[in-house]
Amino acid sequence: MALKKFGSQTVKFGNPPSIVSTYTIVGPKEGEGPLKDYFDMILEDDMWGQESFEKSEAKIQEETIKAALSNGNLTNQDIDYLLSGDLLNQIISSTYTARALSIPYYGLYGACSTMTQSLSLGAMLIDGGFADKVICATSSHFSSAERQFRFPLEYGSQRNFGAQWTVTGSGATILSSEGNGPYITYATTGKIIDMGIKDATNMGAAMAPAAVDTLVTHFKDTGYSPSSYDLIISGDLGKVGKNIVLDLMKKEGYDLSSMYTDCGVEIFDGEAQDTHAGGSGCGCAAVVLNGYIYKEMMKGKFNRVLIMATGALHSTIINQQGESIPGIAHAITIDINNS
Amino acid sequence: MALKKFGSQTVKFGNPPSIVSTYTIVGPKEGEGPLKDYFDMILEDDMWGQESFEKSEAKIQEETIKAALSNGNLTNQDIDYLLSGDLLNQIISSTYTARALSIPYYGLYGACSTMTQSLSLGAMLIDGGFADKVICATSSHFSSAERQFRFPLEYGSQRNFGAQWTVTGSGATILSSEGNGPYITYATTGKIIDMGIKDATNMGAAMAPAAVDTLVTHFKDTGYSPSSYDLIISGDLGKVGKNIVLDLMKKEGYDLSSMYTDCGVEIFDGEAQDTHAGGSGCGCAAVVLNGYIYKEMMKGKFNRVLIMATGALHSTIINQQGESIPGIAHAITIDINNS
Repeated sequence: MALKKFGSQTVKFGNPPSIVSTYTIVGPKEGEGPLKDYFDMILEDDMWGQESFEKSEAKIQEETIKAALSNGNLTNQDIDYLLSGDLLNQIISSTYTARALSIPYYGLYGACSTMTQSLSLGAMLIDGGFADKVICATSSHFSSAERQFRFPLEYGSQRNFGAQWTVTGSGATILSSEGNGPYITYATTGKIIDMGIKDATNMGAAMAPAAVDTLVTHFKDTGYSPSSYDLIISGDLGKVGKNIVLDLMKKEGYDLSSMYTDCGVEIFDGEAQDTHAGGSGCGCAAVVLNGYIYKEMMKGKFNRVLIMATGALHSTIINQQGESIPGIAHAITIDINNS
Repeated sequence: MALKKFGSQTVKFGNPPSIVSTYTIVGPKEGEGPLKDYFDMILEDDMWGQESFEKSEAKIQEETIKAALSNGNLTNQDIDYLLSGDLLNQIISSTYTARALSIPYYGLYGACSTMTQSLSLGAMLIDGGFADKVICATSSHFSSAERQFRFPLEYGSQRNFGAQWTVTGSGATILSSEGNGPYITYATTGKIIDMGIKDATNMGAAMAPAAVDTLVTHFKDTGYSPSSYDLIISGDLGKVGKNIVLDLMKKEGYDLSSMYTDCGVEIFDGEAQDTHAGGSGCGCAAVVLNGYIYKEMMKGKFNRVLIMATGALHSTIINQQGESIPGIAHAITIDINNS
């Protein structure tokens, strides 16, 4: 069998898997932002009746996946694999969701790159003939992330202007070997890139070089140029990281100014919502993809999108031991037509 | 294309990927145990010149993979994907290893099930045509695991008799689309099973029901019986979990008494080494597979082996909030012949 690899880090799917259902649930703050009309459910209270932030996040992910199943007229019995992960230690939101759903499960850890990591692997499992239907999902929660990675909320730490706001929300995509699109046509898998950033309040700068590495590799591997895409969107670089990407890509000879943005920039109104550099967290790319991008593709606004979720693989324990924050970015091409 | 699924949770590989290189590094305690002659390198000091347990674990994983590459006359440029994970928060041993190796990387979290999770996915990526060569790896370290999941070592907590001893070590397997075996022929992906165990010193009991679920599913999906195998081995259930599996499998109608054991039971001499119920940790299944099992298969002792690494997806934060410990088990069949 001929290898489906295109260049060094990209695969082209022979029978591109189709997105057949999506669902998104977001918190109240995300539900007041510029993309509010694209989300399927907006919570009034980000605790959602649970007794801890972590249990709330797990409930959000579980209910998102159940609704994606229901939206696609599917049950857990129709699904071959669940591929999911999140930011919490031991990816517990995903674990407890997988427990409730009783679907064969592979847990992933790609920090905020998880949405496109799960879609890349999910598309490979389908195109490789190992599955008919796969669920790809992730979630994040502002309060569980803040207390795990930074400061207790009660401490009231002042946020610097490079800091980002972890999105409370979950997005799920159901991929199928059969469907009417949009289709996942290419996947470019990232390498870890680490330029030495040690500041956990400046994740955009830590992730941007990985984003540039994956973008340049994607264009070289596929022969596509930026203008091949109606939209190129990174996961959660925020304003700081977005501007670094624009600058570094220009130095590499690619002008992204007319079609590139970042999910973290789009999800909040930074001035009005006091979110500083923008949104972050696994949930950021997940809800923007499964809300805004999917729905606008179905309406005809975008025919071909490159979405690249970006992960800062930040660990408090080894960061406190003096290590820097490694970044990674995985890109997938989504086409409205399969031809 | 016909789906390669066999039954509900198993795939059969059309062109079974071959193991072309393995390597194992273990700590001093593992190097005094019954399997010491099967490990490629035994450390004299489990800190290995590093300033923290975490950095030592990362070095162990990195050097294991580099040696597996060298063993196979390969370089990082020959490898399409690195699939790895470990027990540490944000799987930092794997992340920093991936940073050093510069190979397209998918991070996994399956707790102690990671070795067979990575081999299952790696085999799918090769058989699906997305890769020629994949590295599957994991690691654990007694000291980094104890302080993250249980007590600071300095506290000198007394260990109960159901407790297990996290293996210090790393194992890596390089899979290839071409090779002379042993071959990965089947993969049975586990669901999460949680029978309500909340005791973090009794992981064997938490994982055993998942092991039974995956074993029964594997036999039903493939038509194999226990006697189809020369060896059936679970990852790190220890003595407590192993006995639960034997009992529960007998109730399901399967007598495993003549060919079943557990990596955690085999790696230490529980009496002489004071390891109580046995070994645990991602590294346990990794070094027993890539050391003992691989080498004995090459020598002709075993022709067909079912290895099933078992994960206790234990999170201290949600365990402290009253939640139980979910278990999972992924099984793969390794055949010396591809026919």
